[in-house]
Amino acid sequence: MNLPSASHSPALPRDSRLDRIRIVLSHTSHPGNIGAAARAMKTMGLSRLTLVNPKCFPDAEAVTRAVGADDILQRATVCQSLDAALADTVFAVAISARQRSLGPEPMQARQAAPEVLALAAGGDVALVFGNETAGLSNAEVQRCQRTVFIPANPEYTSLNLGSAVQLLCYELRLAAFDGSPPVVTKAIPFASPLATNDDIERFYAHLERIMIATEFLDPQQPKRLLPKLRRLFGRSELERDEINILRGILDAVEKKIGQ
Amino acid sequence: MNLPSASHSPALPRDSRLDRIRIVLSHTSHPGNIGAAARAMKTMGLSRLTLVNPKCFPDAEAVTRAVGADDILQRATVCQSLDAALADTVFAVAISARQRSLGPEPMQARQAAPEVLALAAGGDVALVFGNETAGLSNAEVQRCQRTVFIPANPEYTSLNLGSAVQLLCYELRLAAFDGSPPVVTKAIPFASPLATNDDIERFYAHLERIMIATEFLDPQQPKRLLPKLRRLFGRSELERDEINILRGILDAVEKKIGQ
Repeated sequence: MNLPSASHSPALPRDSRLDRIRIVLSHTSHPGNIGAAARAMKTMGLSRLTLVNPKCFPDAEAVTRAVGADDILQRATVCQSLDAALADTVFAVAISARQRSLGPEPMQARQAAPEVLALAAGGDVALVFGNETAGLSNAEVQRCQRTVFIPANPEYTSLNLGSAVQLLCYELRLAAFDGSPPVVTKAIPFASPLATNDDIERFYAHLERIMIATEFLDPQQPKRLLPKLRRLFGRSELERDEINILRGILDAVEKKIGQ
Repeated sequence: MNLPSASHSPALPRDSRLDRIRIVLSHTSHPGNIGAAARAMKTMGLSRLTLVNPKCFPDAEAVTRAVGADDILQRATVCQSLDAALADTVFAVAISARQRSLGPEPMQARQAAPEVLALAAGGDVALVFGNETAGLSNAEVQRCQRTVFIPANPEYTSLNLGSAVQLLCYELRLAAFDGSPPVVTKAIPFASPLATNDDIERFYAHLERIMIATEFLDPQQPKRLLPKLRRLFGRSELERDEINILRGILDAVEKKIGQ
């Protein structure tokens, strides 16, 4: 699905910290997942992919699944060991939730993202994802300074590798830009200025006349109809154009019933 | 990747609100994405999948990509129209970030998740995802009361459909179980249960008849009046009692003008 969010938020500035976070995929079996990971990275503004002993790479299936993110595949680094993949990093995070007898304390993705970004201000940081079936080995986890997990349904935790990369990259993007979250402007086309209180009162008075004229409202027994309608329209924050439409409908009704 | 997060967190309670959120995929082209969506849902504890005119379903590729979530595929509902897919829902959310000339105000996924959950406490809620290439049509978006977008890299917003489902379901799970962000309850006087989609559609149809009968609306030149009215009432999250009042007014007018 194409989500040109730029149309809703002003062009976001680049965050150079995202350029210093490398996604490391260790012993990936399915090339399609490598392509999906590249696409997931690019949608969130990450660009550095490192592959440790991928089963098939390069591979046409990876390119297919990457869609427009094949530039990330082309610039991917392929290593023979995790040590090589972590060269020059100042911090490495294992993405895993398996119970480990040893290894760093696990932390939730959402809580970890700001820390990862802060560390990336000082140097390269790696997020390390294991094989689709076996996950990361204990030795791999112990190479990392932090273990991060993604909360999941305890009855079914089988997260797709590309989805796991997507969720981490999403958390990093929000952590990078969320201090100033993309402003949801209310300036969508055709949104007109808010109606004034006077406009709105004239609408309620007009609506009341029509309700009486059509015998829907008995002024002797008003049954809280007007407060209920005020509550309804009050929630809408009526715009000037909308008041004009509503008044237009009431005028047309009035004319038709010959009042 | 296998993420037995249960090992880190005590078995999480079920949240029945997640059972009342249906994922609606409209006009999906690739069956693999349907399978990926089912898997994404199940990892986050959602279970109800509705497909509107899928290109290929059932399909072996969907089962392959669903991995252990084929129970969700088996229980999926297939519909011929979005209206049918939204039957009995009290609220529908369009997942889209395309600039729309009309339609509900866009909201970020993270901010929308607690609201969606709160609404699900009162009835079925739908999250509606469009076709992989074309997204949702304007007509589809206008059937929904809210538009939600996923923040993305403005230079590359091409999020995979399965990834989009994953991110929304993840936000819903975190909203349900994490930090429990305070939900602003709309505990205001006179609140009745939310109107269903069917009730609301019947109101729009009735309003349209009256507008035509009073010559306010020229069916040959409708001038976007109905989308504008949908946008207005869509913001109100209409309640059942309110729909009854509005329909009552329309009935009274109809009787008076002798239709």
